[in-house]
Amino acid sequence: MSSQPNEDVESQTQQPLLGHNSQFSLANASSQVAIVGANVCPIESLDYEIIENDFFKQDWRARGKIQIYQYLFMKWALCFLVGLVVSLVGFFVNLAVENIAGIKFVVTSDMMLAGRYGLAFLVFAASNFVLTLFASTITAFISPAAAGSGIAEVKAYLNGVDAPQVFSLRTLVVKIIGSISAVSSSLLVGKAGPMVHAGASLAALMGQGGSKKYGLTWKWLHYFKNDRDRRDLVTCGSAAGIAAAFRAPVGGLLFAFEEMASWWRSALLWRAFFCTAIVAIMLRAFIDICYSGKCGLFGTGGLIMYNVTSENVVYHLSDMPPVLLLGIIGGILGSLYNFILDKVLRLYSLINEKGIVYRIILACSISVFTSCLLFGLPWFASCQACPRDAKEDCPTIGRSGNYKKFQCASNQYNDLASLIFNTNDDAIRNLFSQNTDKEFHGSSMLIFFVTCFFLSILSYGIVVPAGLFVPVILIGASYGRYVGMLIGSHSNLDNGLFAVLGAASLLGGSMRATVSLGVILLELTNNLLLLPLIMVVLLISKTVADAFTANIYDIIMKLKGFPYLEAHVEPYMRQLMVADIASGPLQYFQGIEKVGNIMHVLRTTRHNGFPVIDEPPLSEQPVLFGLILRAHLIALLKKKAFISTPVSTGIDAFDRFSSVDFSKKGSGRVEEVEDIVLTDEEMEMFIDLHPFSNASPYTVVETMSLAKALILFRQVGLRHMLVIPKLPGRSPVVGILTRHDFMPEHILNLHPLLRKSKWKRLRFRLPRLKNCFDASMQLTAGSSLSIGR
Amino acid sequence: MSSQPNEDVESQTQQPLLGHNSQFSLANASSQVAIVGANVCPIESLDYEIIENDFFKQDWRARGKIQIYQYLFMKWALCFLVGLVVSLVGFFVNLAVENIAGIKFVVTSDMMLAGRYGLAFLVFAASNFVLTLFASTITAFISPAAAGSGIAEVKAYLNGVDAPQVFSLRTLVVKIIGSISAVSSSLLVGKAGPMVHAGASLAALMGQGGSKKYGLTWKWLHYFKNDRDRRDLVTCGSAAGIAAAFRAPVGGLLFAFEEMASWWRSALLWRAFFCTAIVAIMLRAFIDICYSGKCGLFGTGGLIMYNVTSENVVYHLSDMPPVLLLGIIGGILGSLYNFILDKVLRLYSLINEKGIVYRIILACSISVFTSCLLFGLPWFASCQACPRDAKEDCPTIGRSGNYKKFQCASNQYNDLASLIFNTNDDAIRNLFSQNTDKEFHGSSMLIFFVTCFFLSILSYGIVVPAGLFVPVILIGASYGRYVGMLIGSHSNLDNGLFAVLGAASLLGGSMRATVSLGVILLELTNNLLLLPLIMVVLLISKTVADAFTANIYDIIMKLKGFPYLEAHVEPYMRQLMVADIASGPLQYFQGIEKVGNIMHVLRTTRHNGFPVIDEPPLSEQPVLFGLILRAHLIALLKKKAFISTPVSTGIDAFDRFSSVDFSKKGSGRVEEVEDIVLTDEEMEMFIDLHPFSNASPYTVVETMSLAKALILFRQVGLRHMLVIPKLPGRSPVVGILTRHDFMPEHILNLHPLLRKSKWKRLRFRLPRLKNCFDASMQLTAGSSLSIGR
Repeated sequence: MSSQPNEDVESQTQQPLLGHNSQFSLANASSQVAIVGANVCPIESLDYEIIENDFFKQDWRARGKIQIYQYLFMKWALCFLVGLVVSLVGFFVNLAVENIAGIKFVVTSDMMLAGRYGLAFLVFAASNFVLTLFASTITAFISPAAAGSGIAEVKAYLNGVDAPQVFSLRTLVVKIIGSISAVSSSLLVGKAGPMVHAGASLAALMGQGGSKKYGLTWKWLHYFKNDRDRRDLVTCGSAAGIAAAFRAPVGGLLFAFEEMASWWRSALLWRAFFCTAIVAIMLRAFIDICYSGKCGLFGTGGLIMYNVTSENVVYHLSDMPPVLLLGIIGGILGSLYNFILDKVLRLYSLINEKGIVYRIILACSISVFTSCLLFGLPWFASCQACPRDAKEDCPTIGRSGNYKKFQCASNQYNDLASLIFNTNDDAIRNLFSQNTDKEFHGSSMLIFFVTCFFLSILSYGIVVPAGLFVPVILIGASYGRYVGMLIGSHSNLDNGLFAVLGAASLLGGSMRATVSLGVILLELTNNLLLLPLIMVVLLISKTVADAFTANIYDIIMKLKGFPYLEAHVEPYMRQLMVADIASGPLQYFQGIEKVGNIMHVLRTTRHNGFPVIDEPPLSEQPVLFGLILRAHLIALLKKKAFISTPVSTGIDAFDRFSSVDFSKKGSGRVEEVEDIVLTDEEMEMFIDLHPFSNASPYTVVETMSLAKALILFRQVGLRHMLVIPKLPGRSPVVGILTRHDFMPEHILNLHPLLRKSKWKRLRFRLPRLKNCFDASMQLTAGSSLSIGR
Repeated sequence: MSSQPNEDVESQTQQPLLGHNSQFSLANASSQVAIVGANVCPIESLDYEIIENDFFKQDWRARGKIQIYQYLFMKWALCFLVGLVVSLVGFFVNLAVENIAGIKFVVTSDMMLAGRYGLAFLVFAASNFVLTLFASTITAFISPAAAGSGIAEVKAYLNGVDAPQVFSLRTLVVKIIGSISAVSSSLLVGKAGPMVHAGASLAALMGQGGSKKYGLTWKWLHYFKNDRDRRDLVTCGSAAGIAAAFRAPVGGLLFAFEEMASWWRSALLWRAFFCTAIVAIMLRAFIDICYSGKCGLFGTGGLIMYNVTSENVVYHLSDMPPVLLLGIIGGILGSLYNFILDKVLRLYSLINEKGIVYRIILACSISVFTSCLLFGLPWFASCQACPRDAKEDCPTIGRSGNYKKFQCASNQYNDLASLIFNTNDDAIRNLFSQNTDKEFHGSSMLIFFVTCFFLSILSYGIVVPAGLFVPVILIGASYGRYVGMLIGSHSNLDNGLFAVLGAASLLGGSMRATVSLGVILLELTNNLLLLPLIMVVLLISKTVADAFTANIYDIIMKLKGFPYLEAHVEPYMRQLMVADIASGPLQYFQGIEKVGNIMHVLRTTRHNGFPVIDEPPLSEQPVLFGLILRAHLIALLKKKAFISTPVSTGIDAFDRFSSVDFSKKGSGRVEEVEDIVLTDEEMEMFIDLHPFSNASPYTVVETMSLAKALILFRQVGLRHMLVIPKLPGRSPVVGILTRHDFMPEHILNLHPLLRKSKWKRLRFRLPRLKNCFDASMQLTAGSSLSIGR
């Protein structure tokens, strides 16, 4: 253990990049809103490197064919289970929402039919209020991490950012129940995002390798106690989530791979495909059950599926100008949506920081405001005569239908109420419907669009599980249909088609995926002939929106302070050497280290990896032996595998350990060094770190450009990357790079001159984040470090 | 230059792993058939590493914003162009095939109508013979690399294997024209594979950065003179190829990413999506033109699109058993298909090795055999009465239609002739058609299935451009429909549906993709409700087939001797250290090296990368400076940038060079050291290699497991990986790993004991390949190497 640098380390603690000035504040860290300026320290990096130490190698060699088959079998069995359970959850959520919201609308409609408008409003507003109160209370008190959509958290996890509580059982339960009540309460929030989060949580919980707490310690599950296998499962789970939310197995799969996953490989694609296939088949079976009318108000409409295929869509090249126009408007609207949402979330965070009660009050006020708008606005719309050839009853009586009577006479309906005083799924179905060009007034459509746009932005940040997909589709469809009305007879396209294209354009403008959104829309509308048009719209809107703001999930991740590692390289990174970033004193251990030193370092730093360097007399000159992880050190200390003299222990050290001791704990669970109590005598003993150190860490030379190092770091999915010197005769390792060192904010802080350089590509200049990012971050020694004993 | 190891190198040349015992034999290397045992030496590895030398850094810093925008603009403009041209080519191929084959069938049908059966056969067989002769002659003489499907070659290229002539202009032209005549000649070959190859070639040619030969040296194109940008373009091109072949923009995109590409990233996905969107829109526009009847016999059917949506498909869980059965049979049939195809290709290679004339004779015999079968077999089928409610004329007269009259009476048709005496596209359309359960006899279907199965295997290996997609769909659809007939009323599913599922199962069993094939089938059949069934079938057939044989493209790549780098790690690789593989003497250069030494090494080895090591007096002890590429050395030698004394030249060395001198030449083009002529005086001079050496190559420590090193090698896309010693005091680099070192054949050769180990996962034990794989392969020094001067 180097003896001198401790003071240096302490003196560095004022810097924002240091890890151990953190205070845990779980509530803030994970709520959707109280984010800016919050201290989100418990975030950890994941580690996808193959740890090659003698102990693991021994363990691996001991595994026979049977274990390999066990592992293979479990991999697919877990996927099957994830698909099965996610489809059950998806079906349950849809069923519950349709029934709760359906009963609400039926009861209020009945009252309005009887002319008791005041009572109807009271019942409507009160039930919404109660549902929102329930959703926000369980979210705020039980699991703040369940607020919001959750897609950003899952995306960050798949990038290697492990935020606390995101995948806990508690969050899962709150997410599902909260989502049901929030959506049923007529808040303008979606259920797709929460489904993705729920799917990912389910997968993460299943892949956690059992639970000691609940006595689930099946041996077969141990193989999954590592970050790589968990990442694969979470990818499958999130694909299954979207697949269940939209009944779009291929679209869900693609969304998980295009938008959420940071690492792809064909083998994983097949496993995820298997998972979404299970979802598709199960949902199909559930719908068969509902066809027989056993699902209450769920009806036979199927899980959301807006069939547009009434007839063959015909379009020609001459229809392109309006399509291009939709793409451009969608891009602008989408980036505007992201921009305003960003501002509103920052504003909300000020309110939410004041306490849990404020959060609940905010949520309830939004609910009351929403109820007033939904009930009040239709009064401004004029009544329309029922079409004679309507396929459904008109006006709709006694059920949640398309031709809402509202205040109108007996053979009339209120077109605005059909949209606004309805469930979101029904509203989308109405907007997408074809041959209904005359069903809606332009003014109603405009009112609906503006209402949705702002209500959705206001509703997202409150403390309930809230998705963004459905609101964005709703906004997009309404503006698209409005544009279609304006263009009118100048185009051959149906207004329903315009609505679909509008939805595509806003999705592209806000979420910036292309292929997956296109396929999701296809699977929703069930019309493949639309594909070329949807493709064009998505590409244009994404391109336009990219010029203004970032992807909505990136914005949320930034607000939450997740250190997301981008795939692309900022231009200035090509101008920086690794040595320019890796600086500061380096903490390392000797191959055979004193227990007291280890305890001291673990207590005073929060680094997660330490180089192990053999020094004289162990070797002739200092030699880099490897890298040891904090978690493994704590496991060694807990087992008290100490030796009284500093000599090598060899292979018999392994007898005391099983591989489970070193396996990675579930997401967010870390063993703390504070739990270890040692006697003074033990503190003077030694540990042979050699068998437990990763003897072949990935290294880069200090003169490598940061851009090139980032490619290795990100492609291989590392947590620690050792920097070795160019010239010999110095310390064998001159620094450690972690995720934190590649964050543009950190680099620009270290080298402020780069801010002005022509090479900058950052779109947002965010307030300097106070987060500690990754506790594993190491202050690393430059060339000036003299290795002392 | 180390002086002593040359004898060692020479003594090693008997080993099959050495590169410089190669003889170029282009014809053999690239023909589809003459493969096994052939010497395929000119294959090169591609290099996706960022080369960081002083010269490139200087050049990069000199680039301003305008250059960056130029580059961005060109990236998208090239994509647009690729999409545009590929759609033109795709349309042209379809138009030509439909018209040539159509006229042939119309003429023969007319003759048969007049009762002149003998003449009809003569005309039919003769036109087939002439078309095949033409296709095989141009392929054999002008570009043997154009034979076969080409998907394997493109897949290998995207993995980093650069086979010669694969992307030349010549190959492109032969591929397109040859494919048209081969498909028109009623050979059972497809046009999708050739379309993919054509699309990839087009993209590669466009991304070649201009051509000095044709005076195309636009400055903007220079930015694409590297392997990374070319790889991206080729990925887009191959996606566009499938998209154009099947009018399946999303399916094509996914196929390129799932089956062909080895590296994915979201940004590339968007660019490829843009490219396939252009294809989709252009094809749509062309079809608009054809609707007005200007395309001859092309008709209004659209480019292949087998519309199955006659009505809503209804199925329940009870329909699953037959679907599962189809999946299992498809998997077995698919692996059987691959197995027999492998054997036939090996047999053909014996014939084809004898000379070009033998190849053409083989092709023509297959054509005659095919003509006999197609014309002869329908005579065995009995005539059927025309259905009364037929939507088309029955029997079809005077055009290529569904109800072939053949030898039947005036109100009858021959069901086997409708399938077999027809274009492949029409046959597939017939098989997929719904509500036609009574149109076909079981016996006809069985005959058709068996004929297709064997004809397709026999036809693939001959020397014409030949795809596999359409034959496999045809075989699958016929067996699926036959199974449907056998099951009959025990299932609610339509026979047309069984045909679609059968096609899916055989595609899955043979090509082993899942998502992309599912989407392609969806886009072909235009019925999204089939999706869950197709997903199940694909997954089952892939799983079943994986147990028996490899993917068909992998088989072809193995036969061709392409050193394809798998994404997965063989289990025994975890037991091997890097030092176990990297062995033998190492060739390296000093920082300032004598010209004569460089010339000698370049002439006597075919290595493509050499470590640059600074030794005393340049430094106190040997230091690894970097890695220099053979191509860059040749560029230096050509410019004669020599110095008379061994001193560092510094930055002024750059004035003589422009970045174009060092840019990568187009695929398959290598500068030869033999072209350089130097005087004796020049041979005594020196070159300062420092500014041109990659100063930060990726390195691994010699104790790293091969599995872990492979992850880095493959994820980052390297060509050379330097091995550094664990302990200091030895040579600073102890070996170089190249693609060759990760090939299972090579490793098992070095360590034959592994063959018996329980860790082996190889499915095929291929005859030991005589290929030299990668000329860049280096014999590398173990720890015993003493660094001499």
